[in-house]
Amino acid sequence: MAANTFGEIFRVTTFGESHGEAIGAVIDGCPAGLRIDADFIRKEMARRSPGQSAITTQRKEGDAVEILSGVFENVTTGSPIALLIKNKDQRSADYTALSKIYRPSHADYTYEKKYGLRDYRGGGRASARETAARVAAGAIAKLFLNEYHIRITAYVSAVGEIKLDKPYQQLSFSMIDSHPTRCPNPETDKRIQELILQLKAEGDSVGGVVSCVIEGCPAGLGEPVFDKLNAALGNAMLGINAVKGFELGSGFAAATMRGSQHNDSFVREGEKFRTLTNNSGGIQGGISNGEDIYFNVAFKPVATIAKPQETLNTAGEKTTMEAKGRHDPCVVPRAVPIVEAMAALVIADFVLRNRGARV
Amino acid sequence: MAANTFGEIFRVTTFGESHGEAIGAVIDGCPAGLRIDADFIRKEMARRSPGQSAITTQRKEGDAVEILSGVFENVTTGSPIALLIKNKDQRSADYTALSKIYRPSHADYTYEKKYGLRDYRGGGRASARETAARVAAGAIAKLFLNEYHIRITAYVSAVGEIKLDKPYQQLSFSMIDSHPTRCPNPETDKRIQELILQLKAEGDSVGGVVSCVIEGCPAGLGEPVFDKLNAALGNAMLGINAVKGFELGSGFAAATMRGSQHNDSFVREGEKFRTLTNNSGGIQGGISNGEDIYFNVAFKPVATIAKPQETLNTAGEKTTMEAKGRHDPCVVPRAVPIVEAMAALVIADFVLRNRGARV
Amino acid sequence: MAANTFGEIFRVTTFGESHGEAIGAVIDGCPAGLRIDADFIRKEMARRSPGQSAITTQRKEGDAVEILSGVFENVTTGSPIALLIKNKDQRSADYTALSKIYRPSHADYTYEKKYGLRDYRGGGRASARETAARVAAGAIAKLFLNEYHIRITAYVSAVGEIKLDKPYQQLSFSMIDSHPTRCPNPETDKRIQELILQLKAEGDSVGGVVSCVIEGCPAGLGEPVFDKLNAALGNAMLGINAVKGFELGSGFAAATMRGSQHNDSFVREGEKFRTLTNNSGGIQGGISNGEDIYFNVAFKPVATIAKPQETLNTAGEKTTMEAKGRHDPCVVPRAVPIVEAMAALVIADFVLRNRGARV
Amino acid sequence: MAANTFGEIFRVTTFGESHGEAIGAVIDGCPAGLRIDADFIRKEMARRSPGQSAITTQRKEGDAVEILSGVFENVTTGSPIALLIKNKDQRSADYTALSKIYRPSHADYTYEKKYGLRDYRGGGRASARETAARVAAGAIAKLFLNEYHIRITAYVSAVGEIKLDKPYQQLSFSMIDSHPTRCPNPETDKRIQELILQLKAEGDSVGGVVSCVIEGCPAGLGEPVFDKLNAALGNAMLGINAVKGFELGSGFAAATMRGSQHNDSFVREGEKFRTLTNNSGGIQGGISNGEDIYFNVAFKPVATIAKPQETLNTAGEKTTMEAKGRHDPCVVPRAVPIVEAMAALVIADFVLRNRGARV
Repeated sequence: MAANTFGEIFRVTTFGESHGEAIGAVIDGCPAGLRIDADFIRKEMARRSPGQSAITTQRKEGDAVEILSGVFENVTTGSPIALLIKNKDQRSADYTALSKIYRPSHADYTYEKKYGLRDYRGGGRASARETAARVAAGAIAKLFLNEYHIRITAYVSAVGEIKLDKPYQQLSFSMIDSHPTRCPNPETDKRIQELILQLKAEGDSVGGVVSCVIEGCPAGLGEPVFDKLNAALGNAMLGINAVKGFELGSGFAAATMRGSQHNDSFVREGEKFRTLTNNSGGIQGGISNGEDIYFNVAFKPVATIAKPQETLNTAGEKTTMEAKGRHDPCVVPRAVPIVEAMAALVIADFVLRNRGARV
Repeated sequence: MAANTFGEIFRVTTFGESHGEAIGAVIDGCPAGLRIDADFIRKEMARRSPGQSAITTQRKEGDAVEILSGVFENVTTGSPIALLIKNKDQRSADYTALSKIYRPSHADYTYEKKYGLRDYRGGGRASARETAARVAAGAIAKLFLNEYHIRITAYVSAVGEIKLDKPYQQLSFSMIDSHPTRCPNPETDKRIQELILQLKAEGDSVGGVVSCVIEGCPAGLGEPVFDKLNAALGNAMLGINAVKGFELGSGFAAATMRGSQHNDSFVREGEKFRTLTNNSGGIQGGISNGEDIYFNVAFKPVATIAKPQETLNTAGEKTTMEAKGRHDPCVVPRAVPIVEAMAALVIADFVLRNRGARV
Repeated sequence: MAANTFGEIFRVTTFGESHGEAIGAVIDGCPAGLRIDADFIRKEMARRSPGQSAITTQRKEGDAVEILSGVFENVTTGSPIALLIKNKDQRSADYTALSKIYRPSHADYTYEKKYGLRDYRGGGRASARETAARVAAGAIAKLFLNEYHIRITAYVSAVGEIKLDKPYQQLSFSMIDSHPTRCPNPETDKRIQELILQLKAEGDSVGGVVSCVIEGCPAGLGEPVFDKLNAALGNAMLGINAVKGFELGSGFAAATMRGSQHNDSFVREGEKFRTLTNNSGGIQGGISNGEDIYFNVAFKPVATIAKPQETLNTAGEKTTMEAKGRHDPCVVPRAVPIVEAMAALVIADFVLRNRGARV
Repeated sequence: MAANTFGEIFRVTTFGESHGEAIGAVIDGCPAGLRIDADFIRKEMARRSPGQSAITTQRKEGDAVEILSGVFENVTTGSPIALLIKNKDQRSADYTALSKIYRPSHADYTYEKKYGLRDYRGGGRASARETAARVAAGAIAKLFLNEYHIRITAYVSAVGEIKLDKPYQQLSFSMIDSHPTRCPNPETDKRIQELILQLKAEGDSVGGVVSCVIEGCPAGLGEPVFDKLNAALGNAMLGINAVKGFELGSGFAAATMRGSQHNDSFVREGEKFRTLTNNSGGIQGGISNGEDIYFNVAFKPVATIAKPQETLNTAGEKTTMEAKGRHDPCVVPRAVPIVEAMAALVIADFVLRNRGARV
């Protein structure tokens, strides 16, 4: 029972609501002896934080991460690492009107059906603000994975109809963070920017796709049956707000392919066993094979839009709503570090789980 | 750490290899007082078993399920339910040649990298035969869900390029099992049959898509953060052999949509709160909203094909292999009951988890 | 893997070291709709805090509990409840000398062998200060158990050779907190006070026994095999610092008894099934039977004593140490609320687990 | 939620009732590459099986263990190891009369209150027969611990008033299995035999104590807070049928001691850090320190006795019962291998858990 806990050995528990005192995370199971780079955590937080550019929300979130425990003289001690992020920019007045309405495609209605009540301030626990805690924890997972030379890189590969039709091998990852859209292709970046600004003007929003590549992952990670590495990654991604789909390697296209076309033949590269193609996406039978792991994550358009929408209030009466808050018209540029963080949590956990594989 | 265990309260542990003594499952956490219908279990097993028609493998699997414990006078007692399925048709001779080869897109190589050795007889634990244990456990989960009037229906919606372009509401679910392909549209069924028989003749295989609908699921199931109901379903599906993708509701298409188009407005239907559209796929903020839950699962083509393929042996030398066994050219018709079983395990678990939601 | 997490459904994760920024707990799985009484939490914290009387340490701990999340308008929301207790009275200077020594019967040596390093400030994570977080979480569990009219009462029943030789039924529980020793017998209380003051003067410490009674627990809690209610209680108690033994009901005396003498016959009391005796301690076959649950917990003498002791420094050289800090000569009076808190966490969890027992 | 599952990484799930088809266990998480010695498993089972001597029940149990999966060519593969023990000697007729009675100090009443029904055949799941599955699983854990040179030895140290008043260091462990009582002292063994035979003649039963020593355990096993190694051992022991108490090292005697007397000073032995005394019982701050781990486990007298007893039937009417079955007058000789098995499961699990302690 781990509704707010993620992972088996490297376990992260997050807490907090968008307009409460603070959000945060407790990491239990981070090995002792890991050097913590506070600057790196700060940079990761900045990648997720709002207000980065004209295409994201101007809302400011105070994303300073305080490490309350588990680190002594900058090194992890094996004790739980508590990470605290205080909520600073709480304009609760923006939200009180929402206590009596069920916003379309939000979690207002479902929370109330589940719990009998809800914290209606800015979405409460359902707010994407919770993901800040994941990015903080993911930063520590990344520091751990550095020790194994495992690199995780996500980027925006589609927004609305605009698609980046290039395999990841042809992209320059260094461009990702220099583009406001986090799409590492100058021309596509520009077109996406235009689309987002247009939708902002229209008071609408749009969905998109984040792609992710894990390089340097050793062969042998993942469990053969229920905790296949692809299942764990899918679970992680589908646990991110607004995600509607996940595909690994060949993904949905595999459904249209022939076995003779899809199978990845083994070939030698010096002493190493490689595969000629990588439709498997780096995972075979649920276990990594040493090739790059890559996958796509589909995000729906943000539910909060300025355009007027018909819906019901909590009494069941028809009403029209227009969101007034400061919201992203497109979530995917800021979702990039969240996808990376969740992938890092999965891989860190499976690296540790794998230590029990052999006598 | 639950590599072979699935679920939190309704927990299923499976065991067994394709060519060992037996496979099976232990269900821990099935509530006491549930009447077990052995005939229903038998029928579910028959839906998964090979040799059902000309388009599936002719290999016969002995799929009789023995209930060893946890049921007394046909009623569950609250004790673990052990389900045993003996392996009968073990032609080990078919497989010994494979001990020295890494079959393309199989788990041979990855098992060996993970464990230092592998049970090479017919894929061992990596064989899809393991899913028979899941179908047996899933049948018991379905009996439990009957008490809640929750119905789970999966069907084949695509094979190769052939797609069933109809929403599930326009389909006649009663046709599913009467068609060899489990595609509930006579014309599409016929075309898929032809394609599969052609590929069988060519010694090739093909992928496909299974769609699934959950009707009657009450609002309130699912956890808001890491164990979102969609994440749990995605995890379950991606844990099925050969699955490469999962999408809920609008799925990957959501990435191309506008918020104004994607949002599901609330409307009244008598006393009930409904949504006008259901792009959410019955889940909002990770929690069911009472609408139908529906999703797609993409399967890659079966890796075992009769066509000759180049690969490496375990010594790293190039070799050509041709599979001799009896294999399905397309796995999706038999995957239908597996998808349903996994969905049933998820929903049964979340029904029980939800009992703790309120004081 | 839950080294710092306790419970299955009502799950508590604690964090923090004695001389870090803060300690705290995150409760995941507390049902929604529970009214939180901040005053009650404060009172529970005060019962554990040092400096209560002449027989406890004069060290002051800042035990104000901040609720950071999971409670809205004084009611639980179903979201994780984060509890924060800042460390105020951190005299780190007291402890730096200890970085190079292994104190006898402390965790210095074992932490270093496990993790390769240790946070030596005041015992770090091994300090009993961590139990403050448990008392805070336990207070919330008690509020939940109030809804079920389950009452948990612990008291001191022995210190050194001084024993309270009365069954709990003959004691006046209202005396517990009015006595500095928490022994609810005026004469024994007085003798224990004298013993503790004498040991304080000698620079020594002494062990003791805490007894605990759970009244109003319904029949049916506990699992039959591995999670027997007695095993869960034993696990909880043995997880408290300095505990060396646990016994339920007849306990170790049962080893000397005959079956004819030990068996608890069933008798009627109106419509209720009761037992004539209660050697079982309210639990039979691992499951509560509706009678009072009672058990004893043995605490060793506090390891930190002012008397000089021989030991080794981290370089393996002989050295003599004399503790300078402010420490309790006897831990059991302050352990009473900790025993209650851990018992409350166990019972709250099993109340929720039991909701899955029947269809 | 793991009512029938034990362990975190080395996880054992048991199933089966005393008079069902079979009992058994599934081990998930046993590392690959461990050689399985079937003969050793057989010997361990024989140590627990009834009918070993005049002082145990003459009932014969078919305790042949079939390994259904997870072992290939006598070596573990990393897949779940399913162990099956068929029930052979099922005289169900002995038990049907018991369907309408609540036996004193048995689990009949509590099962019915929990589940609403019970499998009354011979105690069903509550029967100590379930422990045969634990011994089988424990045998595999012992084989794993052999690789680490960790040895676990239990023996009978008291039955009724007869106590073996010698520390374990003065005993000859090789005598344990050669004595019918498993008390490794010829004179005490004889006296206990006489007591048991006398009680058998009287139709009564008696309790006892099993002591256990773990030698060769490396320093560093155990978790500092909730999963202290002592708590895990206590949990394991209190999960054995009929156990009423657990104490580690100095145990309950610690409550009477002074700190200056109880503290274990560190001393050098060549390069090794040792402790002069071992009141800690080999565990400090929840973590092993490399010294011998030793503990006592108190068993109540067997509840089933031939002497007539007053109790209630399920309708709440007074009735007198006399057990007719073949039962042990004293369970502790046969409990010795069960104590060892549970200890082995704990240590194996913590050895694996410890692999995650450091970067």
